[in-house]
Amino acid sequence: MHPEAVGEATYQQAVIDVLGALAYAELSGSLRLAADADRAPTLSARLTLARIGAGAWDNYTLIESRLVELDWLPEQAMQPFTAAVDEFHHRSQPRDWLEGMVKAYVGDGIARDFYREVSRRVDPQTRELMSTVLTDRGRDDQLAQSIGDALDDRADQAGRLALWGRRLVGEALAQTQRVAVERDALAALLVGAWEVPGAEADLVELGRMLTRLTDAHAVRMRRIGLSA
Amino acid sequence: MHPEAVGEATYQQAVIDVLGALAYAELSGSLRLAADADRAPTLSARLTLARIGAGAWDNYTLIESRLVELDWLPEQAMQPFTAAVDEFHHRSQPRDWLEGMVKAYVGDGIARDFYREVSRRVDPQTRELMSTVLTDRGRDDQLAQSIGDALDDRADQAGRLALWGRRLVGEALAQTQRVAVERDALAALLVGAWEVPGAEADLVELGRMLTRLTDAHAVRMRRIGLSA
Repeated sequence: MHPEAVGEATYQQAVIDVLGALAYAELSGSLRLAADADRAPTLSARLTLARIGAGAWDNYTLIESRLVELDWLPEQAMQPFTAAVDEFHHRSQPRDWLEGMVKAYVGDGIARDFYREVSRRVDPQTRELMSTVLTDRGRDDQLAQSIGDALDDRADQAGRLALWGRRLVGEALAQTQRVAVERDALAALLVGAWEVPGAEADLVELGRMLTRLTDAHAVRMRRIGLSA
Repeated sequence: MHPEAVGEATYQQAVIDVLGALAYAELSGSLRLAADADRAPTLSARLTLARIGAGAWDNYTLIESRLVELDWLPEQAMQPFTAAVDEFHHRSQPRDWLEGMVKAYVGDGIARDFYREVSRRVDPQTRELMSTVLTDRGRDDQLAQSIGDALDDRADQAGRLALWGRRLVGEALAQTQRVAVERDALAALLVGAWEVPGAEADLVELGRMLTRLTDAHAVRMRRIGLSA
């Protein structure tokens, strides 16, 4: 990150970027979860995924209202992030509902951790909205339980799903990096440009954040009996 | 319908059937709309379909709560209807988002008309719930508008979409008939077994209901500039 880029970027644009990216992640996640639900083998599994998808939609509408409040068209705030998020989903299409469940669990988890990190760097009002959106509401437990149950019956799937989990994280980080390169203001926010001056120290902190994200991912994978 | 079948069927079972069928129709409709939204060419079209899908999910949760109130497992109440509804969707998979929009408009419209007819034959409490679920909330206008806009640019699609509309109604009626044959209590409700005794007069009324449904369908098709 060049210091002049930070200078050009405005804090307000960074907040709109955060909200736009999060809004589109929730919107697009809700649609993908619904598509996965449609392929679930039982009505009960279908309902689990549909309910999580509906929760993501509710999150979308919360952020949408906030964007409107801030005089932004939601579509306009989301547009810069559609390519990266769509590309993530395109490159990580579950081949079956079990991969869909793991994607919901792993993807949702790492996205939530990431945005929680981001939320530490924004104003209290934005942070409060993000905290509501990022509340887990038992989704993790539900998904971990469903995946655990499924793996009890199909232990031969563990290797495949461990690989799948690794791929999901790789694709998520690749797209996040792509966005950071394209959006100066957002990148400035991520390295803490509005808190601590001095880009070097900030990049160290960015590295620490990545370590925290991958550590938390490993814990989540172990919880469903898979290696990270 | 044999008179003894009406005798065996209980009114309570018919109501559970109505709620179970409607619940699964809304659940499954919400998932299909989300899948169609995912293929929409613009973010704005995607949001339109996603919002309608979210409305269908809200409807599902209303019926789900009522089933739980009546001491029924929602999955159990829906199970008898999953095959017919899934088959309907399987046999009417939109090839693109425009067909998806027409399916949402036509399918939603005819289903709503059908369940409104049914709601005239149930107790006031059930009727009130159904009336809430069946409220249009501007969906029809929104869809008609979006389809109209799309057809302005692509007038060559009108013939294909008119055919598609006819196919949708055909498939919907075929699956409704299948359900009526399988579910005695529901069929008894449809022919008004708990109101007017005398199966012959009831079948005449059933014919009239079908005429009303197809007439309303023709009006809807004309509204988007397509022949029925």
